[in-house]
Amino acid sequence: MRAALMERERLWVEDVPDPTPAEGEVVVKSVACGICGSDLHAARHTEEFVATSIEAGGAFKLTTFDPVVLGHEFCAEVMETRGDLRAGDLVCSVPALDRPVTVGVGYSTEAPGGFGEYMLLSERLLMPVPHGTPKDHAALTEPMAVGYHAVNMARLVGNEGIVVIGAGPVGLAVTANLKARGAGPVAVSEFSSRRRDLAIALGADVVVDPRERSPYGLSEITGRDRTVVFECVGVPGMIDEIFLNAPQRARIVIVGVCLQTDHSRPLIAVNKELNVQYVLGYTVREFHETLHHIADGKLDVGPIVTHTVALDGVADAFDDLARPNAHGKVIVRPWD
Amino acid sequence: MRAALMERERLWVEDVPDPTPAEGEVVVKSVACGICGSDLHAARHTEEFVATSIEAGGAFKLTTFDPVVLGHEFCAEVMETRGDLRAGDLVCSVPALDRPVTVGVGYSTEAPGGFGEYMLLSERLLMPVPHGTPKDHAALTEPMAVGYHAVNMARLVGNEGIVVIGAGPVGLAVTANLKARGAGPVAVSEFSSRRRDLAIALGADVVVDPRERSPYGLSEITGRDRTVVFECVGVPGMIDEIFLNAPQRARIVIVGVCLQTDHSRPLIAVNKELNVQYVLGYTVREFHETLHHIADGKLDVGPIVTHTVALDGVADAFDDLARPNAHGKVIVRPWD
Repeated sequence: MRAALMERERLWVEDVPDPTPAEGEVVVKSVACGICGSDLHAARHTEEFVATSIEAGGAFKLTTFDPVVLGHEFCAEVMETRGDLRAGDLVCSVPALDRPVTVGVGYSTEAPGGFGEYMLLSERLLMPVPHGTPKDHAALTEPMAVGYHAVNMARLVGNEGIVVIGAGPVGLAVTANLKARGAGPVAVSEFSSRRRDLAIALGADVVVDPRERSPYGLSEITGRDRTVVFECVGVPGMIDEIFLNAPQRARIVIVGVCLQTDHSRPLIAVNKELNVQYVLGYTVREFHETLHHIADGKLDVGPIVTHTVALDGVADAFDDLARPNAHGKVIVRPWD
Repeated sequence: MRAALMERERLWVEDVPDPTPAEGEVVVKSVACGICGSDLHAARHTEEFVATSIEAGGAFKLTTFDPVVLGHEFCAEVMETRGDLRAGDLVCSVPALDRPVTVGVGYSTEAPGGFGEYMLLSERLLMPVPHGTPKDHAALTEPMAVGYHAVNMARLVGNEGIVVIGAGPVGLAVTANLKARGAGPVAVSEFSSRRRDLAIALGADVVVDPRERSPYGLSEITGRDRTVVFECVGVPGMIDEIFLNAPQRARIVIVGVCLQTDHSRPLIAVNKELNVQYVLGYTVREFHETLHHIADGKLDVGPIVTHTVALDGVADAFDDLARPNAHGKVIVRPWD
């Protein structure tokens, strides 16, 4: 099959052997697959990413320096009728193969990701995409499930003023899920004007450029019982900055994944009695619910997709995504 | 009056003018006053403590380099009958004067603390000590209220395995309050054998020397639905160490106050979906309830007090407390 390969910060397209399914697995066609911030990180800082993956255990699974086919935010097409699924049906799956030792799809030489023509999926984990759902939207199930899980973990009870720090795909997923459940008001803080526009399109009540004003002081936020902050950037110093600026008793949900050692001043957090909830991923059930929220329009994900590219556009898309003003989510379509 | 004064890491006893009450304030006799870790810090690292106090605003109130009478964990004796209080009655109070700008008792030149013969207290904040309560026990209301508040903030629902890191006065206050509410099992991790004994006396179900074994792996802890960790040490690196060793979805309550910038690896916390609750102080109501829990024996604080000293023993007691194996809580009795 044709696939975009990544090895030590290099990306190129090549013909590679089709993947071979183990028992309980099926070969499917990858028809749409989003580029994730973690893919960018893996392809730009491979050495550090692999080291961190090994240290962290489960979550970031690229633990090899061999060439891999990245892509874990996929929508796939079934190739032969099996059970209730017919050839041509669209499916999603959590990006994992259900083997004795779980294999991360899109982070392993054994389980090529969605930036290639074919993938392996575990039959038992297949989720049919409801008819009529665009494949690009179904491919957003994975990142949107991250936002859904983060919101579920935030212990919202109502009347919170909500601040979302960063409107990259994670911040947008959080924003859309907050609005889908009627939470808020939601203020999104983001440097990029393009991304601020996307946040508005996804339901943010107010957006600010943090160089111009603080989201914490907005009357929409201060007028509520409590402030909840979603950290969706994931670089060192963000947590300390939130400690410094968030109000008394704020709850802070850490969704952005900072891969480096970070620093903060506990005394500031102590003085404000802050609460920090670190979150990761989603459950299979949350993933499934997210797919259905997308399918039934409860989550309007349309505005997130700003570009689609074929396999030979992957390397350039990775370069473009380094400039945050350029794109929302880029979807790779291996068969275009 | 005679008082122990502290100025820039020096402690000495001297005659100073009696304090003069403002409207709504009374002069009382300090009859028992505990030495707090914050007092030690103020007297050993004055420069840093004052700088941090100014930066932090409300909580750590020593903002002067002038000589002060320390001591904010006091039990006092009323000198003249007023309202329901008669001369000779014992009272406690949160360590603050209710003035237009709140003044911290024991951290200000305006409000001498309990390491002197006389103090000022706001009449409206006086809490009568129930008859029969030893003055040394009543003086423990303040530190025990810190533990009570921390436990109240921990959102315990039952069936938690609880790990207390450190059995200084804060860790002991947390341990006693946990047992008073029937929470646990409680495992206390502490280097000092003397303090481990105190933890047992206050109700710890199991104590460990962390050089010998990890508290997190104890069957008493692993057999429960969730682990809750109380950090009661407050030095840099403790939070990262807890991130590394605590189990999935642990809740971490930060009671120890780390005055320096701290470092931690968010990725480890993310992978475990840890929750960190920073806490500070207590409410007036929690303080009042704690006094009554001590008075009615619900909190058995007797074992905590290991030494009492008169004013001329204060400087030596501060030196002794630098060696954690030597003491539990030291009570200063200015009239002995």
